[in-house]
Amino acid sequence: RISWISDIIVVVSPENIETMKSIVEKYDHKRVMIVKGGITRHRSIFNGLKVFAENEFSNHLLQKPEVVIIHDAVRPFVEEDILSKVVMAAKEHGAAGAIRPLVSTVIASAADGCLDHSLERARYRASEMPQAFLFDIIYEAYQQCTDYDLDYGTECLHLALKYCKTNAKLVEGTADLWKVTYKRDLYAAESIIKDNLSQQVCVITDVKEGVAQVGFLLHESLKSQIKVEAISIPLSKNDSHLQNIFSGQCYNFICINDKKCAIQESQQLVDMLEKSHISLLYPVVLILVHLHISENTSFSIGMEELTRIKKFATEEKKKNILIYGLLIQYKVCNYF
Amino acid sequence: RISWISDIIVVVSPENIETMKSIVEKYDHKRVMIVKGGITRHRSIFNGLKVFAENEFSNHLLQKPEVVIIHDAVRPFVEEDILSKVVMAAKEHGAAGAIRPLVSTVIASAADGCLDHSLERARYRASEMPQAFLFDIIYEAYQQCTDYDLDYGTECLHLALKYCKTNAKLVEGTADLWKVTYKRDLYAAESIIKDNLSQQVCVITDVKEGVAQVGFLLHESLKSQIKVEAISIPLSKNDSHLQNIFSGQCYNFICINDKKCAIQESQQLVDMLEKSHISLLYPVVLILVHLHISENTSFSIGMEELTRIKKFATEEKKKNILIYGLLIQYKVCNYF
Repeated sequence: RISWISDIIVVVSPENIETMKSIVEKYDHKRVMIVKGGITRHRSIFNGLKVFAENEFSNHLLQKPEVVIIHDAVRPFVEEDILSKVVMAAKEHGAAGAIRPLVSTVIASAADGCLDHSLERARYRASEMPQAFLFDIIYEAYQQCTDYDLDYGTECLHLALKYCKTNAKLVEGTADLWKVTYKRDLYAAESIIKDNLSQQVCVITDVKEGVAQVGFLLHESLKSQIKVEAISIPLSKNDSHLQNIFSGQCYNFICINDKKCAIQESQQLVDMLEKSHISLLYPVVLILVHLHISENTSFSIGMEELTRIKKFATEEKKKNILIYGLLIQYKVCNYF
Repeated sequence: RISWISDIIVVVSPENIETMKSIVEKYDHKRVMIVKGGITRHRSIFNGLKVFAENEFSNHLLQKPEVVIIHDAVRPFVEEDILSKVVMAAKEHGAAGAIRPLVSTVIASAADGCLDHSLERARYRASEMPQAFLFDIIYEAYQQCTDYDLDYGTECLHLALKYCKTNAKLVEGTADLWKVTYKRDLYAAESIIKDNLSQQVCVITDVKEGVAQVGFLLHESLKSQIKVEAISIPLSKNDSHLQNIFSGQCYNFICINDKKCAIQESQQLVDMLEKSHISLLYPVVLILVHLHISENTSFSIGMEELTRIKKFATEEKKKNILIYGLLIQYKVCNYF
């Protein structure tokens, strides 16, 4: 995702290495090397750093970087902006880390489980990730530090200060850097992802006048709420404009038609979606709208058609493409 | 909700007093008094405490309590258990408060924006709410404290220690005590509430054999995932078993029928739901399932019936009862 990062070392507990390997393979992640973690945070980070410095640790030694970023996988919403800020600060100061204001007051308890003293909230900060270091400084710090540090310590900035006399630059981070820790944090993360995915919708219609008109009206009524792109194209053609949309950030599609049997056309659309690979990362939602104009007052759709759409949707769901069908019946009224 | 709490003082910023009054009225909350907040946390809490001690502050002085609990409205998932624990501890120690482990390391920054020192995470705790105090201790502390405390302080336990030499007992709280602070916390809170509401479903069917059988099958297939209660009753009767369910913690109902026009029956059910007042606090979901057995291969339901259900659902939505209709068509096959 970020071009100026040359290598990514993922430190994983031994029992999860195979899972991680399959994830890296599935999503075709580049520049990634998987390294076995240790029994504590610091031992894991140290293992990751050794890849750049110790021949015996890795079968192909990576080139030693000038600056290394340390990050937690449990902070999935890290942005390029903060990564670049901590790297620039680390180049200047030797070490840098993201901080956030404290949400609760921090207190020290005495041996009897009673309050010893409380800290003035304004004077302290929560130390978050990412942090960045000149490689030589953080590697030196890990080489120097004691077993006690490796077993009980939690703070890389502390090691840089203690063993290399480097006072890390503190960089104010955004609220999105929080650590996904509790079940509620999973809920929050899920909602944030959903929110991002639902920012944009693409309305696709055939070039036929009546249908294109419906697409236009839908665009008009949705555009105040979300970003809408409406296009009218003959779906049989391999349209380049449509392909541009597929390779963008759009994950929601509404396809409107009025043909009796629109499965073939939908299949073509889904093929194009699959080729774009966007459904690898997040689910793609495709709503197939079938307009049915009639003068009767009751629905009429063949069971076979329904069964076919259902089967089609079940197949595509495995590929992370969620297909919904919507049948809209117009009653044409003759008032004259 | 908790019977041993005699009075609840809600301290609200002046601009929100009218809104809060309407909420208290709407949900018919008892034992609640609304008090105007100050410009800082401590000034607001002090205003709340004055209700029990200063005649001029309130037109009807409430009886001074032995123990007072201080809580934040932004921690909505507080349980009776922790409230009772801090109250018992406050009775013994004079003051008590809930604590949680720190999620991030806490650091102090120097004037130049660089790291000064980091705290050993294991030695410190996050001070959360609720907290409880002997009334005389916390009121004395607020009377003694300086303007600086009132304007910049954040910790009630600190005031009790500083001005009354009371070392608060620290009580380990659950993760649910967290403070709803960021947008992501609203997402999390919403999901926790939804999760709780969707734990139980009640399947209601007529006593007729075929329909009761469907209810039984639904019960069988759902019971591995959620708590299901299935009952078969003549809906025309004012059933006491049904009323017991309505006054319990169930917010989801599935009502199965096979009558052509089931609106009257549904109306009766909804009337009973309304009378139970459960929809005041959370939305009630009612799924009306209409079984239609036929030998044809196409749906057939009158537009008028659909329109009537839609109108009914629109009316009930205003009362926080969400009605969904589901039409299931059986095809009867004769294999002999």
